[in-house]
Amino acid sequence: PPSRLPGVGTTIFTVMSKLASDHGAINLGQGFPDFPPAPSLAEAVNQAMAAGHHQYAPMAGVPQLRQRLAEKIQRLYGRLYDAETEITITAGATQAILTAVLALVPAGDDAIILEPAYDSYAPALAMAGARAVRVSLDPVTFRPDFERIAQAIGPRTRAILINSPHNPSGVVWTREEMQALADLAQRHGLFVISDEVYEHMVYDGRPHISASSLTALAERSIVISSFGKTYHVTGWKIGHVVAPAALMAEFRKVHQFNVFCVNTPMQHALAQVLQDDAPWRDLADFYASKRSRFAQGLAASGLEPIACEGTYFQCVRYGHLSDQSDLDFARWLTAEVGVAAVPLSPFYAQAPGLQVVRFCFAKQDATLDSALERLATLP
Amino acid sequence: PPSRLPGVGTTIFTVMSKLASDHGAINLGQGFPDFPPAPSLAEAVNQAMAAGHHQYAPMAGVPQLRQRLAEKIQRLYGRLYDAETEITITAGATQAILTAVLALVPAGDDAIILEPAYDSYAPALAMAGARAVRVSLDPVTFRPDFERIAQAIGPRTRAILINSPHNPSGVVWTREEMQALADLAQRHGLFVISDEVYEHMVYDGRPHISASSLTALAERSIVISSFGKTYHVTGWKIGHVVAPAALMAEFRKVHQFNVFCVNTPMQHALAQVLQDDAPWRDLADFYASKRSRFAQGLAASGLEPIACEGTYFQCVRYGHLSDQSDLDFARWLTAEVGVAAVPLSPFYAQAPGLQVVRFCFAKQDATLDSALERLATLP
Ligand SMILES: CSCCC(=O)C(=O)O
Ligand SMILES: CSCCC(=O)C(=O)O
Repeated sequence: PPSRLPGVGTTIFTVMSKLASDHGAINLGQGFPDFPPAPSLAEAVNQAMAAGHHQYAPMAGVPQLRQRLAEKIQRLYGRLYDAETEITITAGATQAILTAVLALVPAGDDAIILEPAYDSYAPALAMAGARAVRVSLDPVTFRPDFERIAQAIGPRTRAILINSPHNPSGVVWTREEMQALADLAQRHGLFVISDEVYEHMVYDGRPHISASSLTALAERSIVISSFGKTYHVTGWKIGHVVAPAALMAEFRKVHQFNVFCVNTPMQHALAQVLQDDAPWRDLADFYASKRSRFAQGLAASGLEPIACEGTYFQCVRYGHLSDQSDLDFARWLTAEVGVAAVPLSPFYAQAPGLQVVRFCFAKQDATLDSALERLATLP
Repeated sequence: PPSRLPGVGTTIFTVMSKLASDHGAINLGQGFPDFPPAPSLAEAVNQAMAAGHHQYAPMAGVPQLRQRLAEKIQRLYGRLYDAETEITITAGATQAILTAVLALVPAGDDAIILEPAYDSYAPALAMAGARAVRVSLDPVTFRPDFERIAQAIGPRTRAILINSPHNPSGVVWTREEMQALADLAQRHGLFVISDEVYEHMVYDGRPHISASSLTALAERSIVISSFGKTYHVTGWKIGHVVAPAALMAEFRKVHQFNVFCVNTPMQHALAQVLQDDAPWRDLADFYASKRSRFAQGLAASGLEPIACEGTYFQCVRYGHLSDQSDLDFARWLTAEVGVAAVPLSPFYAQAPGLQVVRFCFAKQDATLDSALERLATLP
């Protein structure tokens, strides 16, 4: 058949995970924890199954889960979303992104994505028959340049996709940056699709500025997050979306004919787990200490860490050590050094030759230490 | 925002389930069992969680599950699909349908759907920017008329969506009908998206003729099924898709940027459950007895059952009892008689005024008996 996604191959995360396993390398490529979730999660799934929750959930999600989410979001970001009409549970954040794009960006129109960009954004736009207008983040600081973004806005630009804390760079947008985005979006009538899956991994006392926390922004935003990232269960594939009712109505029209609804026992389990704030409140400290351990350990390798303000990713520059492209360097690290990383170029349509690779530090300390030992042998 | 799905409201299944619960009616509307799955399913989920299966599954699905599925399908339908390249696990059948449509039907082209049609088919085509060409099944027998289908094929027709056993009618296509479809699809170069989620609910000694079982058809088909329907766990939202490698490659390109992958512990659980053939082998007998109990019990109501060859749905004609439209009659049954049903008109773009409603008999015998008691009071 003619391809809807002709330029698309297998995602870099799958490619590097496979290469890691082929070479028995320590996998710091694809972003996922190598440690188990709290035992209370499996117990909660069990209780949900024992209570007979095995059939279709309501299309928008289990009501109790939505209600607890509404309460949490209000406490955290100060905006009260209506659990009935403004919150929807999704089959992970990736499904939420495609669904939001289909809901907000008409075929033939444009949306802005900021590069380096998570690799599903452009294919989601392609599937919607829309055009991705690519604007680079600063190649050194990875911060947004709102003049460049404003210049990219044309008469057909309907939306902008943003991601803070930012994968892969680890940059966390400031309140001023989020405010600048709000101004820009309002001035140009853009919708904002805000991917905030790393919302609870922000370090050094910085706050996470959610699109939900600025009224002008929240009113034109679909905000996406992920239980998998927060609770160390990336394989559960459950995320959530909040948006004002008018946007959510369009989101749900697409959602109900994409997945219709989401795994019932696990939604009930998460509703129970959400009664306790400790897991997400403690997450930043938990990961900040892994980040420091890993970044400090990198000194012995000669790799140059890029400041990580949030996410569970640590980027490093290697240009002073090797002439290789980032894809070749990541492959070489995996095959020869025994540590898998993810190159940055797949996050760009046209790789700018940055010579940066990304490590995931959502790993047991022992795993990080073993990886650091191997990296210390870098020539 | 301008709507991608302007004509779309809430699905009839959600509407009728809500109405049933508002009125305390027995819910024979939305298709799902009111009894629990075998205890071995929850046990298998537990074992998977205890074994630490909480992170991302491979994009195409857990290998062992795909392997066991390949073996089952070969034994059942005689075609060996390659587990590595020709089988993908999905977040339910609905997600598989949208993904297949996006993969096989280019924007601006057409696909044929046969009415009455499951309500996600047309929105899936709309989301793909494709046109749904609607052909009616026979209004009395609900069987396909291949001359009418052939007449509907134009230069832009790329695919046809079929569904046997058929929801809502209960019709099961014969080998001759599947062969006629294969001939037509081959002659006109059409892809076939074959929704076979009720594959194990076929009665009276009839076989289920899968698109997988006719080579000429299998070579141009994406075949979709559902663990939820077969194992009484519609809320797990896990389905599967088989297709020749070239079609599957396009399917996976879309899949990886839709949901990326599917719930890991439940995939492992299903891999374990698939080691035993009994659950799906015994399913037809299990449901045939419910079908007979329900159809026989209907005599007292005056409602006229339409022969149900497969699925867990029993359609009835009521035109001799009431002048109401099927939507009004279903509402009235729910509110006044206390038994929720689903009208057939939402399965059509333009309802032909059939005066037929659908009951789901995937219910405990006691539930069916209570519903029949209430229906026996019909004036
Ligand atoms: C969905 S697989 C990729 C996980 C991830 O988000 C990443 O590694 O960036
Ligand atoms: C996905 S909800 C609808 C269940 C179903 O397939 C039906 O009732 O027809």
